[in-house]
Amino acid sequence: MAVDPAAVLRITALSWAPPFARGHVRDLRARWACEELGLDYAERLIDPRAKPEPYFAEQPWGQVPVLHDGDLRLFESGAILLHLSRKAPDLLPADRQGEASAIGWLFAALNSVEPWMFELSTVDVFARGEEWAKLRRPSLLASLGERLDRLADVLGDKDWLEGGFTVGDLAMASVLRIAEKSELLRERPTLDAYLERATARPAFQRALSAQLAAFDKQEKTDVR
Amino acid sequence: MAVDPAAVLRITALSWAPPFARGHVRDLRARWACEELGLDYAERLIDPRAKPEPYFAEQPWGQVPVLHDGDLRLFESGAILLHLSRKAPDLLPADRQGEASAIGWLFAALNSVEPWMFELSTVDVFARGEEWAKLRRPSLLASLGERLDRLADVLGDKDWLEGGFTVGDLAMASVLRIAEKSELLRERPTLDAYLERATARPAFQRALSAQLAAFDKQEKTDVR
Repeated sequence: MAVDPAAVLRITALSWAPPFARGHVRDLRARWACEELGLDYAERLIDPRAKPEPYFAEQPWGQVPVLHDGDLRLFESGAILLHLSRKAPDLLPADRQGEASAIGWLFAALNSVEPWMFELSTVDVFARGEEWAKLRRPSLLASLGERLDRLADVLGDKDWLEGGFTVGDLAMASVLRIAEKSELLRERPTLDAYLERATARPAFQRALSAQLAAFDKQEKTDVR
Repeated sequence: MAVDPAAVLRITALSWAPPFARGHVRDLRARWACEELGLDYAERLIDPRAKPEPYFAEQPWGQVPVLHDGDLRLFESGAILLHLSRKAPDLLPADRQGEASAIGWLFAALNSVEPWMFELSTVDVFARGEEWAKLRRPSLLASLGERLDRLADVLGDKDWLEGGFTVGDLAMASVLRIAEKSELLRERPTLDAYLERATARPAFQRALSAQLAAFDKQEKTDVR
């Protein structure tokens, strides 16, 4: 699918991000879901260096993404993924148990794995070099590693967490990408291969290109 | 509503928890939702000191709650709250935008506030006294404080985040309770009063009593 300025779905994304964050801003999750579902979407780009105060009425912390679906406004990427998943059959199994489990994995990614990934980002990126971050890193890697071991156990030799690729996999892979360059995944080939499988999907690749293209557009505009 | 061993809904909770965790284990969120919705539920109690390995097939990290609704099994408290909210009208507004916003707050509680609350628990409880925890605490309080300031701005002089009490308030109040004894809430009277309003609800009080009663039962059993 394509970015179409006339689309009913409109994703608020960033027009600029620091280099290390490009390809990792969370509108990517919403773009990826649209691509998996075959849904066109429009972009609304905001500059995080000069967030307009009214935007905080749409998103409590001024973050992206926000999704407009016609006159309906949604915030939080998890809520947006859930809403999009219900628009087409591709990301939620049709049977009740499959659907419940896929939604379980969506929440698991965001509330049982990502909190420790956020802490890893703090330790490895935002507070890198600080004394506390060096001291904290080993115990954080140990507890996050234990969580990932259990996840790898569930995955076993399956391609995806529940039958086919679901919104739960989309969220879990998005969260695992935060540790993409750390030893956590290198040491867990099951999860490393799972992430590679997820990000090799054409829908992910199109979503990633679209996010990066939005930054390029803005750079060209800046030059004018 | 009451704990009824014959109920169709069955919440897996703990038969034992260390004293500091009693009244804070996450099955409380599911119990609270049932109480708000007027739904009876049965309890299945497991001992976290001797978790049976088959339980990990129900919950990837062996945690509680799990919810059984007849033959449907759900894991992750967020997914359970969402499922329960759809069974009766009390926790989700009837209009589309109200429903979308309430679900947005549910995810916001779990993914935009609780991750920093988890880190606060690590710093103040699990790693208390460790050098890194002392060094980390000020910057963590600053960034969590900024998030809470924005939340207080949204709340303003309203009782609840979106019109009446919704599943989003239930989740947000549950998450704020993690910082109940810290200066974070004392310094933010808007949120302190919000939390007090939420936990004064008869449904919360019944849920809390039921969780604590389950520990008492077990203690009596231990004595036999």
